[in-house]
Amino acid sequence: VSSRVGSAGGAGSAGSAGPRGRRPGAPDTRGQILEAARESFAAKGFRATTIRAVAADAGVDAALVHHYFGTKDDLFVASLEIPIDPRSAIAAVFAPGLEGAGERLLATVVAVWDEPEGRRPLVALVRSSLGDPASTLLQEGLVRVVFTALQDQLGEDAEVRAGLVATQMLGLIVGRYVVGLEPIASMPRERVVTLVGPTLQRYLTGPLD
Amino acid sequence: VSSRVGSAGGAGSAGSAGPRGRRPGAPDTRGQILEAARESFAAKGFRATTIRAVAADAGVDAALVHHYFGTKDDLFVASLEIPIDPRSAIAAVFAPGLEGAGERLLATVVAVWDEPEGRRPLVALVRSSLGDPASTLLQEGLVRVVFTALQDQLGEDAEVRAGLVATQMLGLIVGRYVVGLEPIASMPRERVVTLVGPTLQRYLTGPLD
Repeated sequence: VSSRVGSAGGAGSAGSAGPRGRRPGAPDTRGQILEAARESFAAKGFRATTIRAVAADAGVDAALVHHYFGTKDDLFVASLEIPIDPRSAIAAVFAPGLEGAGERLLATVVAVWDEPEGRRPLVALVRSSLGDPASTLLQEGLVRVVFTALQDQLGEDAEVRAGLVATQMLGLIVGRYVVGLEPIASMPRERVVTLVGPTLQRYLTGPLD
Repeated sequence: VSSRVGSAGGAGSAGSAGPRGRRPGAPDTRGQILEAARESFAAKGFRATTIRAVAADAGVDAALVHHYFGTKDDLFVASLEIPIDPRSAIAAVFAPGLEGAGERLLATVVAVWDEPEGRRPLVALVRSSLGDPASTLLQEGLVRVVFTALQDQLGEDAEVRAGLVATQMLGLIVGRYVVGLEPIASMPRERVVTLVGPTLQRYLTGPLD
């Protein structure tokens, strides 16, 4: 989980230098696209950001953006600059089945946020999006991506179950990483998983009445 | 739960006119103090706000602020302009005992936030505090007041239990009221209580290992 998020669609994940490696003297096209994407997502939100406009801002063709990054969701995830792609992480969590998925999901989330390089961009995203009533970046971006990936893993009542999981995750994240609520903020990672994991498991597989 | 928050310390809760009723022609001293308090809490945060400075801003004596509002916590709660005092509401939730307290606590919280006049000032507080890394108003103000009141109701492991409750509450509040995450945001109040209540009950009285 220590490499950068790779692009989907077969473009590979060779660091920040693009699929073929960075040629000496060539401008960092991939980096310019990412920078343009970050600025657009932050300024315009998720929905109003288009691959075409990001390409124009970066001075490249839209096809090159698709080539490097895949879909708009892929571009958004890459622009987060977090150490893992939440979609593949969620797929890995659920691969062994629903049993124990609550604890595995929580362990994965806490591992990313506990690391400064994972936490920094995410806390900035949460703060900027929650602080601005006009911003929908959190709900249309990060939460939607995670929420959709979660739903894909669940059967009946997938929306309600994913929504319930999201409430406990959001609160743990805001309490532990944004607000710094003690004793939750300083609690060892393993204890957080032990205490909160059963809640996620109940939301994933428990009765809903 | 439809009247304004009264002040503690025996000053009564006779609307916005102070303990003795508003005299015709007299300035709304109580309202001026509240306005000065709101401005100070928003600008300086909780810790740096003093009764003395609020009194000076409102052009009254500090003793009058104490007389109308009691302690700094009381002044802060009154300045929130929400329909209930979270401290007395929590006391009422726990008065019948710990059994069922999870659902009662949740029902109380959701009832306040579901009403526009309860939600408006609270969403503004959450947004402004989370949006500004320098602001500690949420953690030192609202969360601390609620957290302390919760802890007072719990025995062993009170801090951990209150912290866990706070994470689920924060996430439900951010998801349902701030971010508008569906299907949680539009879910009937009773269903929220049914689905999330057991989580709070487990945090309040369940095993912690």
